[in-house]
Amino acid sequence: MTYFMRKLLMKNLSINNPAMKKLNLLAIPLLYVLMPSVAFAAGGDDIHAELSGILLSMFYLVLSAQVLGWLMSHFGQPRVIGQLLAGVLVGPSLLSLVHVNVTLQAIAEFGAIFLMFAVGLENRLRDLLAVGKEAVIVALLGITLPMLGGYAFGYFHDLSQIQSIFIGTTMVATSVGITAQVLNNLGVINSKYARIILGAAVIDDILGLAILGVVSGMASGEKISAIGVATTLGISLGFVFAVLLVGVPLINRIQSHLSAKKLSGGFGLVISLSLGFAAMSGVVGLAPIIGAFLIGMVLAEVSDNYDFHDKVHAIESFLAPVFFAMVGVQLPLALLADSAVLFNGAVLTIIAILGKWLGGLAIAPQQGMVIANKVGVGMIPRGEVGLIVVGVGLSTNLIDDKLFAEIVVMIIATTILAPIVLRMLIKPPTDPAPPHRLKEDDLGTADGKGI
Amino acid sequence: MTYFMRKLLMKNLSINNPAMKKLNLLAIPLLYVLMPSVAFAAGGDDIHAELSGILLSMFYLVLSAQVLGWLMSHFGQPRVIGQLLAGVLVGPSLLSLVHVNVTLQAIAEFGAIFLMFAVGLENRLRDLLAVGKEAVIVALLGITLPMLGGYAFGYFHDLSQIQSIFIGTTMVATSVGITAQVLNNLGVINSKYARIILGAAVIDDILGLAILGVVSGMASGEKISAIGVATTLGISLGFVFAVLLVGVPLINRIQSHLSAKKLSGGFGLVISLSLGFAAMSGVVGLAPIIGAFLIGMVLAEVSDNYDFHDKVHAIESFLAPVFFAMVGVQLPLALLADSAVLFNGAVLTIIAILGKWLGGLAIAPQQGMVIANKVGVGMIPRGEVGLIVVGVGLSTNLIDDKLFAEIVVMIIATTILAPIVLRMLIKPPTDPAPPHRLKEDDLGTADGKGI
Repeated sequence: MTYFMRKLLMKNLSINNPAMKKLNLLAIPLLYVLMPSVAFAAGGDDIHAELSGILLSMFYLVLSAQVLGWLMSHFGQPRVIGQLLAGVLVGPSLLSLVHVNVTLQAIAEFGAIFLMFAVGLENRLRDLLAVGKEAVIVALLGITLPMLGGYAFGYFHDLSQIQSIFIGTTMVATSVGITAQVLNNLGVINSKYARIILGAAVIDDILGLAILGVVSGMASGEKISAIGVATTLGISLGFVFAVLLVGVPLINRIQSHLSAKKLSGGFGLVISLSLGFAAMSGVVGLAPIIGAFLIGMVLAEVSDNYDFHDKVHAIESFLAPVFFAMVGVQLPLALLADSAVLFNGAVLTIIAILGKWLGGLAIAPQQGMVIANKVGVGMIPRGEVGLIVVGVGLSTNLIDDKLFAEIVVMIIATTILAPIVLRMLIKPPTDPAPPHRLKEDDLGTADGKGI
Repeated sequence: MTYFMRKLLMKNLSINNPAMKKLNLLAIPLLYVLMPSVAFAAGGDDIHAELSGILLSMFYLVLSAQVLGWLMSHFGQPRVIGQLLAGVLVGPSLLSLVHVNVTLQAIAEFGAIFLMFAVGLENRLRDLLAVGKEAVIVALLGITLPMLGGYAFGYFHDLSQIQSIFIGTTMVATSVGITAQVLNNLGVINSKYARIILGAAVIDDILGLAILGVVSGMASGEKISAIGVATTLGISLGFVFAVLLVGVPLINRIQSHLSAKKLSGGFGLVISLSLGFAAMSGVVGLAPIIGAFLIGMVLAEVSDNYDFHDKVHAIESFLAPVFFAMVGVQLPLALLADSAVLFNGAVLTIIAILGKWLGGLAIAPQQGMVIANKVGVGMIPRGEVGLIVVGVGLSTNLIDDKLFAEIVVMIIATTILAPIVLRMLIKPPTDPAPPHRLKEDDLGTADGKGI
């Protein structure tokens, strides 16, 4: 008994202490919602307390991301914005329930990996190659103009060359998911301009990721040397082409030798492949998401025939919101009250909007101004891919907190504004076709992916 | 250029180095399979290298667990054994590709949480309450006898009281998954003895987890005091009853107010609930898996009506093998060559077999010796639940490496032996009904859960 009492005094703040446990049971869970930092600070450094802390953090992240994501979609806004705000809410800036640590970052990275793997699964190489001339024009201008704009922004702010290029990179990707969702909800997903937007958006995603591969590779060299750039460029392009040009024919060749049954139990193999190519991508110096995206594109060749699609989406819908929330956790809210950050964020937003919009207008001579205008606006949202790119920049220390916040302002603004303007431009057809779920044929991406 | 050369010399082993990257691309991935420790030892302590290491470890764990699990099931053995051996293979004992760290342990814990959540989803409270008298007799004896045997083992080896009780606890759980799979494959899942086995196994799982709750709670007090035991017991039982007795009526009450549509999008909510109750379970001092299992049982009330089932299984079939592999990673292979460990493991195996088998024989007076014998053998495999229990013991430092290895020997032996003997005892019906997938009505558990 004396021993027990001494224990009680010594560890009276520990969550593993029987007396505290009694208190814990009596106290409503809200108590833990309000003051977990006390419980965990006292938990000491033992592994058990650490695991409890991670579990509780994951709970806060998943719950808040799901609730705020749902709220956003309820008000017609992209889920991903809600998930980001959820991270800001539970992160150090506000409730301080969740703090950055390696484990949470790793889990968030798995979220990004499975998200990009799922996006890859929706995009077949042959569909991309079949996309019309207009989509290619829009895509290429939609890369060049924001890239130049971002670089100019960096140049005028005396940022390093690599940082300037990185800013441009965050503006390259167009969120296929968000655009497709809006077009789908309006029942115009099969219109010509919708196909141009989606085709161009997919091309921008792929090229944006390839550019990210080069930039993140160069980031490790700190200074840019001709050899370094050439090496990185060679490796990035080599990896992309190796996976696609070897993988796609290969999987089509072995496809006929595999029975549907055999592969239906092969979900574990599919997961292994996505993790393996993500890891390999990391080993050759690219961001892991690039490998996951590429192997997703390879598996897209056979995904119609096998049933791993829904399972991948299940894992993704669990982990991807954690990724977006973790971006929010890392966003210092105080910086958003900094007028310089807001001003720069607004400038970046204007550059981001103009870059994509002018790219769309380039097809006005062939398609007319009305269609070109819709295409231009449809390309504006940066959404989840923008967040993934900026996340890579933060984790590789390529950008500081301030620049991170400015870029996030741009991503949030474009992602929220574009759907609103797009809805105003597109009147639903007079005899509106009922909105239908996207199918593979629609060239887009699934709307079930938690965006 | 000079800068670049200096960098190259300074970081010539770093995986982020452009020159190494070039080498990496040229080297076949096999090189990394063979010597990742070199690459990662050189990676230094920066977060990027750490994330790469975690990603690569996860790849090794998932791939090896899937391949060896598949091989085992191909030879008619339980998958879970293959997943365990996969961990031994890639762990420090053999290939040394994967080492224990907090992140991998956390991911493994999420695997155990989703596994037990999925098991809970298969077990409705009312089905349990409806199970016959025989199942209850078999279950209670199947708890008491191994518990006494395990305690006696500890007593004769001068182990502490709490360790002795823990050994008994590892022998309490019967693997519903493995037994159900064998019975299902033989096409006898609807026979009377099959129902007795499955009913008793489910009861043992629940009571085993409740006992684990008490033991893991007491473990933090190190010495057993009357107040400590009473407090822990009160909290454990209070938590179990609170969740079940409040949760089950509550969900049945609100069920009619929820449209199927509303909840079909509620997968995120389901995940939040499982994480939340796991975390709460940890906060009150129980193992997190207990909370996950209980909320699974609550949601089982409505799981027929909504579509979250397959999604939970998808997450589980990704993460649960990681858990089993991590048990293997933590198993020091050298200890298995220690004759004392093997001898003690054999003794524990005999206790574990006798305890459950005699429990089954107790119904011979009512059901006859033939049925009683089959029931007794059917209760023997400890499988995944045994591994989960022993994993909790290891992570709370309740047992040392040697005792851990001895208990794992017992779990592996019972899990491999029981299905073999059961197959010999049960001749398939003369006009065999085609084996069918288990349904909820079969009172068992799904066979698709990666066991």
